[in-house]
Amino acid sequence: MAAQELYVLKQIPIGVDATGKRKETDSMGEVEVPADHYWGAQTERSLIHFAIGDDRMPKQVYHAYGYVKNAAALVNAAAGRLDRRQADAISTVADEVIAGKLDSEFPLFVWQSGSGTQSNMNVNEVISNRAIQLLGGVLGSKAPIHPNDHVNMAQSSNDTFPTAMHIASALEVKKYLLPRVEALASAIEDKAKQWRDVVKIGRTHLEDAVPVTVGQEWSGYAVQLRDAMALIDRSLEGIYQLAAGGTVVGTGLNAPPHFGEDIAAKIAELTGMPFVTAPNKFAAQGSLDAMVNAHAALRSLAVALMKIANDMRWLASGPRCGLGELVLPANEPGSSIMPGKVNPTQCEAMVMICIQVIGDDTAVAFAGSQGNFELNAMRPIIINNFIHSARILADGCEKFRVFSVDGTMLNEKRIVQFVQNSLMLVTALSPVIGYDKASKIAHKAHEEETTLKEAALATGWIDEKAFDQVVDLKKMVFPHN
Amino acid sequence: MAAQELYVLKQIPIGVDATGKRKETDSMGEVEVPADHYWGAQTERSLIHFAIGDDRMPKQVYHAYGYVKNAAALVNAAAGRLDRRQADAISTVADEVIAGKLDSEFPLFVWQSGSGTQSNMNVNEVISNRAIQLLGGVLGSKAPIHPNDHVNMAQSSNDTFPTAMHIASALEVKKYLLPRVEALASAIEDKAKQWRDVVKIGRTHLEDAVPVTVGQEWSGYAVQLRDAMALIDRSLEGIYQLAAGGTVVGTGLNAPPHFGEDIAAKIAELTGMPFVTAPNKFAAQGSLDAMVNAHAALRSLAVALMKIANDMRWLASGPRCGLGELVLPANEPGSSIMPGKVNPTQCEAMVMICIQVIGDDTAVAFAGSQGNFELNAMRPIIINNFIHSARILADGCEKFRVFSVDGTMLNEKRIVQFVQNSLMLVTALSPVIGYDKASKIAHKAHEEETTLKEAALATGWIDEKAFDQVVDLKKMVFPHN
Amino acid sequence: MAAQELYVLKQIPIGVDATGKRKETDSMGEVEVPADHYWGAQTERSLIHFAIGDDRMPKQVYHAYGYVKNAAALVNAAAGRLDRRQADAISTVADEVIAGKLDSEFPLFVWQSGSGTQSNMNVNEVISNRAIQLLGGVLGSKAPIHPNDHVNMAQSSNDTFPTAMHIASALEVKKYLLPRVEALASAIEDKAKQWRDVVKIGRTHLEDAVPVTVGQEWSGYAVQLRDAMALIDRSLEGIYQLAAGGTVVGTGLNAPPHFGEDIAAKIAELTGMPFVTAPNKFAAQGSLDAMVNAHAALRSLAVALMKIANDMRWLASGPRCGLGELVLPANEPGSSIMPGKVNPTQCEAMVMICIQVIGDDTAVAFAGSQGNFELNAMRPIIINNFIHSARILADGCEKFRVFSVDGTMLNEKRIVQFVQNSLMLVTALSPVIGYDKASKIAHKAHEEETTLKEAALATGWIDEKAFDQVVDLKKMVFPHN
Amino acid sequence: MAAQELYVLKQIPIGVDATGKRKETDSMGEVEVPADHYWGAQTERSLIHFAIGDDRMPKQVYHAYGYVKNAAALVNAAAGRLDRRQADAISTVADEVIAGKLDSEFPLFVWQSGSGTQSNMNVNEVISNRAIQLLGGVLGSKAPIHPNDHVNMAQSSNDTFPTAMHIASALEVKKYLLPRVEALASAIEDKAKQWRDVVKIGRTHLEDAVPVTVGQEWSGYAVQLRDAMALIDRSLEGIYQLAAGGTVVGTGLNAPPHFGEDIAAKIAELTGMPFVTAPNKFAAQGSLDAMVNAHAALRSLAVALMKIANDMRWLASGPRCGLGELVLPANEPGSSIMPGKVNPTQCEAMVMICIQVIGDDTAVAFAGSQGNFELNAMRPIIINNFIHSARILADGCEKFRVFSVDGTMLNEKRIVQFVQNSLMLVTALSPVIGYDKASKIAHKAHEEETTLKEAALATGWIDEKAFDQVVDLKKMVFPHN
Repeated sequence: MAAQELYVLKQIPIGVDATGKRKETDSMGEVEVPADHYWGAQTERSLIHFAIGDDRMPKQVYHAYGYVKNAAALVNAAAGRLDRRQADAISTVADEVIAGKLDSEFPLFVWQSGSGTQSNMNVNEVISNRAIQLLGGVLGSKAPIHPNDHVNMAQSSNDTFPTAMHIASALEVKKYLLPRVEALASAIEDKAKQWRDVVKIGRTHLEDAVPVTVGQEWSGYAVQLRDAMALIDRSLEGIYQLAAGGTVVGTGLNAPPHFGEDIAAKIAELTGMPFVTAPNKFAAQGSLDAMVNAHAALRSLAVALMKIANDMRWLASGPRCGLGELVLPANEPGSSIMPGKVNPTQCEAMVMICIQVIGDDTAVAFAGSQGNFELNAMRPIIINNFIHSARILADGCEKFRVFSVDGTMLNEKRIVQFVQNSLMLVTALSPVIGYDKASKIAHKAHEEETTLKEAALATGWIDEKAFDQVVDLKKMVFPHN
Repeated sequence: MAAQELYVLKQIPIGVDATGKRKETDSMGEVEVPADHYWGAQTERSLIHFAIGDDRMPKQVYHAYGYVKNAAALVNAAAGRLDRRQADAISTVADEVIAGKLDSEFPLFVWQSGSGTQSNMNVNEVISNRAIQLLGGVLGSKAPIHPNDHVNMAQSSNDTFPTAMHIASALEVKKYLLPRVEALASAIEDKAKQWRDVVKIGRTHLEDAVPVTVGQEWSGYAVQLRDAMALIDRSLEGIYQLAAGGTVVGTGLNAPPHFGEDIAAKIAELTGMPFVTAPNKFAAQGSLDAMVNAHAALRSLAVALMKIANDMRWLASGPRCGLGELVLPANEPGSSIMPGKVNPTQCEAMVMICIQVIGDDTAVAFAGSQGNFELNAMRPIIINNFIHSARILADGCEKFRVFSVDGTMLNEKRIVQFVQNSLMLVTALSPVIGYDKASKIAHKAHEEETTLKEAALATGWIDEKAFDQVVDLKKMVFPHN
Repeated sequence: MAAQELYVLKQIPIGVDATGKRKETDSMGEVEVPADHYWGAQTERSLIHFAIGDDRMPKQVYHAYGYVKNAAALVNAAAGRLDRRQADAISTVADEVIAGKLDSEFPLFVWQSGSGTQSNMNVNEVISNRAIQLLGGVLGSKAPIHPNDHVNMAQSSNDTFPTAMHIASALEVKKYLLPRVEALASAIEDKAKQWRDVVKIGRTHLEDAVPVTVGQEWSGYAVQLRDAMALIDRSLEGIYQLAAGGTVVGTGLNAPPHFGEDIAAKIAELTGMPFVTAPNKFAAQGSLDAMVNAHAALRSLAVALMKIANDMRWLASGPRCGLGELVLPANEPGSSIMPGKVNPTQCEAMVMICIQVIGDDTAVAFAGSQGNFELNAMRPIIINNFIHSARILADGCEKFRVFSVDGTMLNEKRIVQFVQNSLMLVTALSPVIGYDKASKIAHKAHEEETTLKEAALATGWIDEKAFDQVVDLKKMVFPHN
Repeated sequence: MAAQELYVLKQIPIGVDATGKRKETDSMGEVEVPADHYWGAQTERSLIHFAIGDDRMPKQVYHAYGYVKNAAALVNAAAGRLDRRQADAISTVADEVIAGKLDSEFPLFVWQSGSGTQSNMNVNEVISNRAIQLLGGVLGSKAPIHPNDHVNMAQSSNDTFPTAMHIASALEVKKYLLPRVEALASAIEDKAKQWRDVVKIGRTHLEDAVPVTVGQEWSGYAVQLRDAMALIDRSLEGIYQLAAGGTVVGTGLNAPPHFGEDIAAKIAELTGMPFVTAPNKFAAQGSLDAMVNAHAALRSLAVALMKIANDMRWLASGPRCGLGELVLPANEPGSSIMPGKVNPTQCEAMVMICIQVIGDDTAVAFAGSQGNFELNAMRPIIINNFIHSARILADGCEKFRVFSVDGTMLNEKRIVQFVQNSLMLVTALSPVIGYDKASKIAHKAHEEETTLKEAALATGWIDEKAFDQVVDLKKMVFPHN
């Protein structure tokens, strides 16, 4: 059955009666659900009990769950535990889930069962009913596809929810975040190349120091980003390990032999990513350490980006009463009251994003520490923060690149002026006349408000020719060329 | 013109042409905006430049801005700077904003200009166009109501955005959060009264200690909540101080005399809350200290709630292999694989909410520290976290009360069993026979696995009558009754 | 017996034999302790078991415990539970503890029993042995002053440790921290007065904005500090509530009637501070909420100080390639390699202190959330962070005032230059010619690199006289004078 | 000259005159320093200006600086810039520094220049004077070994302080921390082996779940630790990259060609660790990203340890009214008032350590984000937190292992009792009779307070033989054996 055809079926109202409600049951009894949705009793209970704020479980978790349910059905079928028709139906619907076609069927809140059970059951119920529909059955009948016995076969929320967390995180990082950081790093590298030889004053402690080139400065930004990218990538090693197969408490109860290995291999095949089964399921289900570590890697990116965004807005400060070395693109009027004002708003947005990610990281580490026994029941908060952080970093990098970095220009006049005025060029004299004499020259120039050269020559400790030879900007920035 | 009538007007498509677009201008030029929305050029620019993640500026900020614009128009009119017709139109639309009728017109993202300028301009543009429409003018013409010259008259984003932040925060806390915490505290107090005399084992270091009553334990929870409520309430003192009147940098440039006092009085009147003008506008605009402090008070509530939720889930652990003193309501099946399992999901949701608030608080304090000169440009992140924290705490308290606290029952059989078995009742002997002898009795009972009484009598240090008189549960829990 | 005489006695080696060891006992048996120290078996055990890092329980906690033990002895004596001689001896030694004469007797680490039991026992043991010595007894004999039965009479670590925490915190804040913040706030206010009329360019988003005076800017700093001081002071309300009297679990078991009220009154008398008994001991012992809140107030101070220190170092940046409006005192050579460099090191130290306090605060809130049942067993970490934060803030404020603020001077030449060049003075034209025209003038001046006035006159929208009347720096900074 | 001989020389009072003071100079003039110390003017200035709290720069930083100065002298000599006699003297003293013989000469506070300049100058001054002494010169004369011109030759604080931070961190981690974590992991693995087959009840959501073995549970702890160790080890990759050679701003001004490569190679040789020169010095000096990342790895260890310590204290709770599956060693009396009480104090200490590390981590990430331009001037706070975290984790692991893990025993009676009573064994029935029926059996047993088997047989859905075959504890914990 083609995916498109299935999607058409979805359009047909599903047994909506006059009340617009349908009866669904679970082990606690009967519940009315909206007739035009696939979800069942447990989803509906959760909607009632956990309507807290506006935070919904990210859709990425459900797409990832699509891979889990698909792989489980295929492995169970191969193991002879599920018949082919059941497995096909589950697999078909799981593909719809992956493709985002059933996003509207996953309405649950983040603040729910700490194991993610309710989201797992939401998936089980939706796949069950949707598959029943495809197979011509009665919604809510649990036949021929039972949400627990078939869709959840050989699984528990305890092993599949962290599995879905890992899949969602890996996909988000690889497919969405890293390409955007890569693009930003490349854009910065382009600038670094373009401005390779523009000499400017370096600054340490915010104070004038010795010269660097603009390109050198920007090469540092790029390296910070590249290092953060490598770190994030390496943090996926833990994320590629999947808990699936551990079932309830890590022992694999009710799963067939090799289920963990098989489902991981199947998920790897379906996603094209190097997932493997976690070597120890007790750690994989009792902790969320790999997620904590992966979020810390996102935080490292935030720490790097904050330095870059701050540097840019300070260097662009002014236009007349600031540093003014950079000219950022003017994307919008900056002030509701000051006509003509332009502000470094992309940098500000980026700084706020970075701070949020650092705050989210506190929540993630805290939650990661709160596991007990065979389960860390702080999963929804962790995956929600992870997806949130990854997403705002990714989009932030994109906007920052397109609307700030790409259009940044130099105010070369100002740059030249600064570097020529700086007293710290005196540093180059130090190896020649010694630190103490060099220091006296700098103080003299500062107090007498002269140039460094004037002060140096006035002391008689160095002659003009030697001065010019030593205090040579080009040599100072590329001393070993 | 009645509010209802205005709302009807809103239904009329606003100059939609074939393209569905309308031209709007700002100081940077022309921009196309969707013809069926009121917003103008700057809002549209922001939508393009800052489409980052899914975080939108909370609607509460716009409702609060409604009060600001309304009050400003009235004060400006009273000062003779705005004519009556202009002021009435602005005031009428501001009321629509307050009532939430124009929520769909405020689509901007959290990650934008750090001053909140874009959201202020969004409000200015929407009020301008909506007022123009009411007055029969041409959308985008800025006449007779100009977004900057009239709606933003005597204002800057720099003073009005923090004013809106304070109004939004105070309203959210007083109207939404505190009533829900109050209801929870009351529910807990009811339980404390109901279980006032039920003696149970106290626990310190997770270890058996001397007895308390269940009511005493719960009275502690209630006091924690009451103290947190008082703290939150007190933190509003800083929030009631408004920056409005400082305009750009705190000097009040372009505002008429007494504008700060007048607009604060008007806002107080419109909201019914004790707003006043901030005594020092340089602090009020250069810092966000009052917000940092108010969020810390929310965090104190989170810290208290976490203790309560954790106690409840531990005391309800079991049913057979845990502490099992409490029986929490079974709201939903607990497991996708373990039939019949019931979990303390409301407690888990509450714990996660508390952790999130603590994480949000890190972001808020960090952002609060990052002000520079005349502006702290970290406003959107702070107000977004504040509203988020307040909202999930409020909703969390409500669900926790209705679906967990209210239905909690005692397992009195277990409670009695525990308290009778405890060795730590020995503490009552200490003042009679001394710490060292009492200690030996406890060790003896522990090693020999006897009751405390058996061990005590066996030592001969105390006789049965004395033992019974001293080790009297009632006296132990109410020693001074 | 005079305090001085006692101190002399202390000098006499205490039963040092050839081995340098003395035998002490507790309920677990015998332990050898260094003969020249007063502590007993439990202190020694703790030294062995918890030698972790270099963090020692702050001496302030022991001084505070001096008040607790003193007050307890006096109240117990008044209640007829302790004889006069015992009470006097305990009280005398407690005074030595308060005076810091026995500081060397309190060697325990922070990382110990979460209730602080080991530090309480350390105090009990030292007072016991020291009192025994004063009364001519045998060290380690526990007679006539038993560490548990007499020094700890009517007390538990569970109620006295938080009591000592509160006393230590209140004393540290009132006697040490607040006077130093007060001195800094006053120094800043002096500067604000001195520079009241010096007009400078204001900056928002780091960008040139409209003018303020240096005094206005600094008045904002002072208000931030004053507000933080008020907040800290108010946070002491919770700190003034003492758990003492609750004993083990809050019920007051083994304490005489009114013990809580009496000991709080006595502590209030001894310290001269408004301590009262906590109205609910279950909350007071099961939580550390008052400490969490008080530390949040310290954090608010940190947030304010960080803004001030950052502003100062940025405004002093240069000397030639930065903002350069302020000249900070040059306290030391700034660079090991750049001769003549001066850096804003006091500001950097302050910024680091503030960040540390914010980090400490995360630990405090986290720990505060981890209480269980009748005890929050995270006390040592919380009091250690509190004293640490208060102390580095206090000392930091002092050094920052003396070595940075007091000696700060203006570079008036630079200040004048900036304000005259700024384009944002255009804002004053806005009410006269409208935002849109004013905006065009600013853009024109920016693009053509002219003064604002030149650009304005060139447009013909305003004549020179009107321009000069409106763009009047004095009126812009004090518009309503 | 033998190291021992040098040490003897150190014993000779260094020119102490009647005043006990010696005059030292720097570029700002003359300063009196204590005559019996080697340090010079800048150290003394820092002692005066930065006496803030009790936090001193960790001695590990100075030992690491010993390597830097040693290597620099050797490389400079090889490059012909320093004569042999000077280099030998510097190298000899640097070895004393490394060996800790001069620890008393490094008294500076953490809260100082953000670049660590004052500690670098402290090292330069001490090595200068000590070398001068060895060479028979006059202290303070700066001849023949000048602190800046010779000891600091080709260096800046800007490149050497982060180099020393990296060396100190790597040594602390490899030599001190990791061996202690390794020992703890091994001890836990021993327990896991020993208890491999002891079946116990598993718990999820704190609630009874299906069985695991004690060994399985502990194997999860070990894996968490092993993963954290691997993570920490991997984080050293960034730490092995050294900034040395970048001098002031990363360009290498005043350093000879290949100085970065050469000094890194020499440091690698001296320390036996794989240090290399950082590929981009602008990133290496403008950021502290590698330190932020390495601290995050420490935090991951803390997160893992917290889970383990919490599990242990909960599983040991009781002895009569808790879970009571574990019996922890009784190291000390637990209560000052409750005779015979034993508490999980090692676990509590560990939990507090973990929370502190998480708090420290917030400070580190915050500080890491605050770099500007060519320098992140937040170095002292970061290295101090890093060494602090590593040290308390290391010592904490050691004490936790020796005094808690090694002596932990099982209460097998309790363990058996729990697992036999649990209703969740019903899960094994699910694949046989379906989730819905299994669920009904569990509810039935719960409500009727019967065993699971009684309830199951009563339903008639399964017979005794089948029940016994399926509900087989051994098979449940090792389903695929």
